[in-house]
Amino acid sequence: MKFEVTYRDPDTRARTGLLHTPHGSIETPVFMPVGTAGTVKAINQSDLESLGVGILLGNTYHLYLRPGHELIRDFGGLHKFMGWPHAILTDSGGYQVMSLEDLAKISEDGYEFRSHLDGSAHFFSPEKAVEIQLALGSDIMMCLDQCVQYPSSAELTAQAMKRTSAWARRCRASYSARSAEREVQPETNSGLRISNSEPGPALFGIVQGGIDPELRRQSAEEIVEIGFEGYALGGLSVGEPKSATYDTVELTAGLLPGDQPRYLMGVGTPQDLVQCVARGVDMFDCVMPTRHARNGSIFTSAGRMAIKNARYARDPLPLDPACLCAVCRRYSRAYLRHLFVAGEMLGPMLATRHNLHFYLDTIREIRDAIRSGEYNSLRSKARFGPEASLPPAS
Amino acid sequence: MKFEVTYRDPDTRARTGLLHTPHGSIETPVFMPVGTAGTVKAINQSDLESLGVGILLGNTYHLYLRPGHELIRDFGGLHKFMGWPHAILTDSGGYQVMSLEDLAKISEDGYEFRSHLDGSAHFFSPEKAVEIQLALGSDIMMCLDQCVQYPSSAELTAQAMKRTSAWARRCRASYSARSAEREVQPETNSGLRISNSEPGPALFGIVQGGIDPELRRQSAEEIVEIGFEGYALGGLSVGEPKSATYDTVELTAGLLPGDQPRYLMGVGTPQDLVQCVARGVDMFDCVMPTRHARNGSIFTSAGRMAIKNARYARDPLPLDPACLCAVCRRYSRAYLRHLFVAGEMLGPMLATRHNLHFYLDTIREIRDAIRSGEYNSLRSKARFGPEASLPPAS
Repeated sequence: MKFEVTYRDPDTRARTGLLHTPHGSIETPVFMPVGTAGTVKAINQSDLESLGVGILLGNTYHLYLRPGHELIRDFGGLHKFMGWPHAILTDSGGYQVMSLEDLAKISEDGYEFRSHLDGSAHFFSPEKAVEIQLALGSDIMMCLDQCVQYPSSAELTAQAMKRTSAWARRCRASYSARSAEREVQPETNSGLRISNSEPGPALFGIVQGGIDPELRRQSAEEIVEIGFEGYALGGLSVGEPKSATYDTVELTAGLLPGDQPRYLMGVGTPQDLVQCVARGVDMFDCVMPTRHARNGSIFTSAGRMAIKNARYARDPLPLDPACLCAVCRRYSRAYLRHLFVAGEMLGPMLATRHNLHFYLDTIREIRDAIRSGEYNSLRSKARFGPEASLPPAS
Repeated sequence: MKFEVTYRDPDTRARTGLLHTPHGSIETPVFMPVGTAGTVKAINQSDLESLGVGILLGNTYHLYLRPGHELIRDFGGLHKFMGWPHAILTDSGGYQVMSLEDLAKISEDGYEFRSHLDGSAHFFSPEKAVEIQLALGSDIMMCLDQCVQYPSSAELTAQAMKRTSAWARRCRASYSARSAEREVQPETNSGLRISNSEPGPALFGIVQGGIDPELRRQSAEEIVEIGFEGYALGGLSVGEPKSATYDTVELTAGLLPGDQPRYLMGVGTPQDLVQCVARGVDMFDCVMPTRHARNGSIFTSAGRMAIKNARYARDPLPLDPACLCAVCRRYSRAYLRHLFVAGEMLGPMLATRHNLHFYLDTIREIRDAIRSGEYNSLRSKARFGPEASLPPAS
C-alpha cells in the first residue's frame, strides 16, 4: 500500500490524499461503510458503487464465525466472495469479541470466547487475527488490540495500552513472516500481491490509551516504533465526552507520522468527520448512517429526522430538499414514513441509501473544500451543526 | 383504456397485444409484480424499471387500512405517493378481506370486517371498492367479487357467482356515475383523464364459478353482458387440481370477448404462464416470485432451488448459470446462501430481483415466441417444466 498526501489545508491539519491499495486508489479523507458480515446491511454492492464507495469495512469476528474465513479463503478471498472488486479494510475482531460476548476472557495471549451462534469455543491471538485477515484477503488489516470502555480505571487503561503494544509487535512479526512466506511461493497465493509495481496489502497499528494524554503519547511512540503502513486511533467514542474525543484525536494524530494514513475507528457523526479531519484524520468508519437508517433516523442538512413521526404522514417533501440522492429525487417523507410504519423492507433500504449518500457527500465536500482552500468556510455550514473551535494546523 | 391485439399464434389462443393506460402502454402477455402496500417487497421502484416492469399491482385492502386511501388521494394518487409513474392495477380488496380476516362477514351488501391492525370496524360494499380505487387513482380497477375456496359446495359456489354478478352491476353503475361526475368537473380531478385522445382508466369485471363449467359459463355471460374494459378470471389457484385450473381457464377465456384483455388473477408458476397464455390469457399477477424469494426459494431454468441448503455453501456458480440478471452476473450461490443463513436483508433483496427477472424474462420470451411464430417450440423448453397438452386455437 502506498499513501500520498495531495493537498494540505493551510489553517488546520486537514489534508487530502490518495491511498493506493491492491483493489484501487481511494481519495482521502474517506468514509468507509461497515459491511459487517460481508454485506453493508440493506444495500447492494452496485448501489454502493453508485454512491462512490471505493472501500468498505468487513468484520473479522463475524466473518470468522460465519461463513468462516477458510471458506472465504478457498473462495479466493472476501472480494470474490461478496462480489466487491474494490478495497476492503478488516478489523481484528477483538472489539466485537469484547462487545458481543459475555463470556469472553482476555489474557496476555488473546481473547477466549464462545460463539454467539452456537456456543462453540474460540481463541483470537494476535497471530490468529492476522491469519484470519490474510485468509479474507483484506487490503488493509488491523492489529489485534484491547479497547477499554469509558470510564475505566487508570490501571486497566494502562494495562490495555501495554497489551495492545505487545500484540502489535506479535501481529507485525506474524504478518511479516507470512508475507515473506507467500512471497517465496507466489503461485499458492491469490490474496497478496508483492510485486514492486503494484501496491500490496497493509497492516495498520492501533493506538490506545483512553483519554489520558500520557498513555496516548506512550502508546503512539510504541506503535510507531514497531512500524506500520498506517495508524489507527482506537478506543474513542466509547462513552467519553465529545471534547475529550476531539482533544485525544488532536493529540494522537499529532504524534503519528505525517506521511502515513491516520484512521479514526468507529467515529462518528457528520460533525465528527469535519472536526476530526481538521485534526488530521484521513479515514473513518461508523455504523451510524446504516444502523440509524434501519431505525428510521435520517441524516439531513437540517439535522436528524425521525421519519416514523406522525408529523411526516402527509409531508410531500423529500427527506432532505437539499439532497440530490436517488431517494430524495423520487420519494416523499410521507412515503418513507408509510414504509417504516408498515414494516416494509423498502423503508430501511431507501433510508440506508440516503444516509450513506449523506455521509459520502459530506466527506466529498470536505475533500473539495480542502483542495479549494475553503475548509474554514465549510466548517461553518449548517449541516455540520454548531461549530466547535478547531485546532490550528501543526 | 385501449387494447389492441398485435399478433395471434396460429396454433393456440396465445396472442400479443398492447394495453394503453393513462400511465403508459404495456405489452401483453404481461406479468405484474405484486406491490401489496405501495411497495413490491424488497425491491425499489428504479430496479423494477430496470427489470422492464411497466405495470404493478396494488392491494386495495392494505392501502385502505394503511396509509388510507384518502391520504393517498390527497397526495395525488398512488402513482405519486409511491413514486411510480407507470401503470397500476388495483384489486378490489374483497379477496384479502376474506383470506386475512377471521371476523369478516359477508352479506348481499358487501364485506363487514375488522382491521387486523387495530381491530376497528370497516365495510366494503361494491360502491366503496370503486370509491377507494378511484381515490388511489388506479389505471385498472377491479369489481368487488366473492371468491370461494376449493372445494366448496355447489350451492355456495353458485351463490358467490350470482353475488359477484350483482356486485359487478353495482360497481359498473357506481364507476360510471363517478366518472361522469368527474367528467363534468375536470378541474377537481387529477386521477382520471377523460379526453378522447388519451386513454382513461378502466374497470374490469371478474368471472367466478369455481371449476364448474356451467357456473363459469353463466358467470361469463352475465359479466360480459354488463360490459367492462377487460375481464378477469377469479377464483382459481385456490386449491383445485392443476388440470382443473387449466380446463377452467380454457373454457372461460373462450367465453370472453376476443378484442378485450383477459386477466388471470393470482396465478402462478412460470409453467402456468406459458400454459395459460396458450389458453388466451393476457395478464398475470402472483406473489410467488417475490414471496418465494424472501424464503430463499429461487426460480432457475433448471427448476426451483432452496438456496439455504448446505450443498450451496461453497458453490461458486451464479443462482442460474443461464440467467443474465444483475444478481447472476455478480454473486455466487455461496454468497446468497451466506446472506440467508446470516439473516441479512441483502438475501431477500437479491433473490427478489432474480426471481422477478426470471418471471419478466419468461413472459418476454413468451411474447417473442408468439411474435416470431415459435410458441410451440418455446413450450417444450426445459424452463417451463414437463409439457402439458395444450388446447387448440379457437
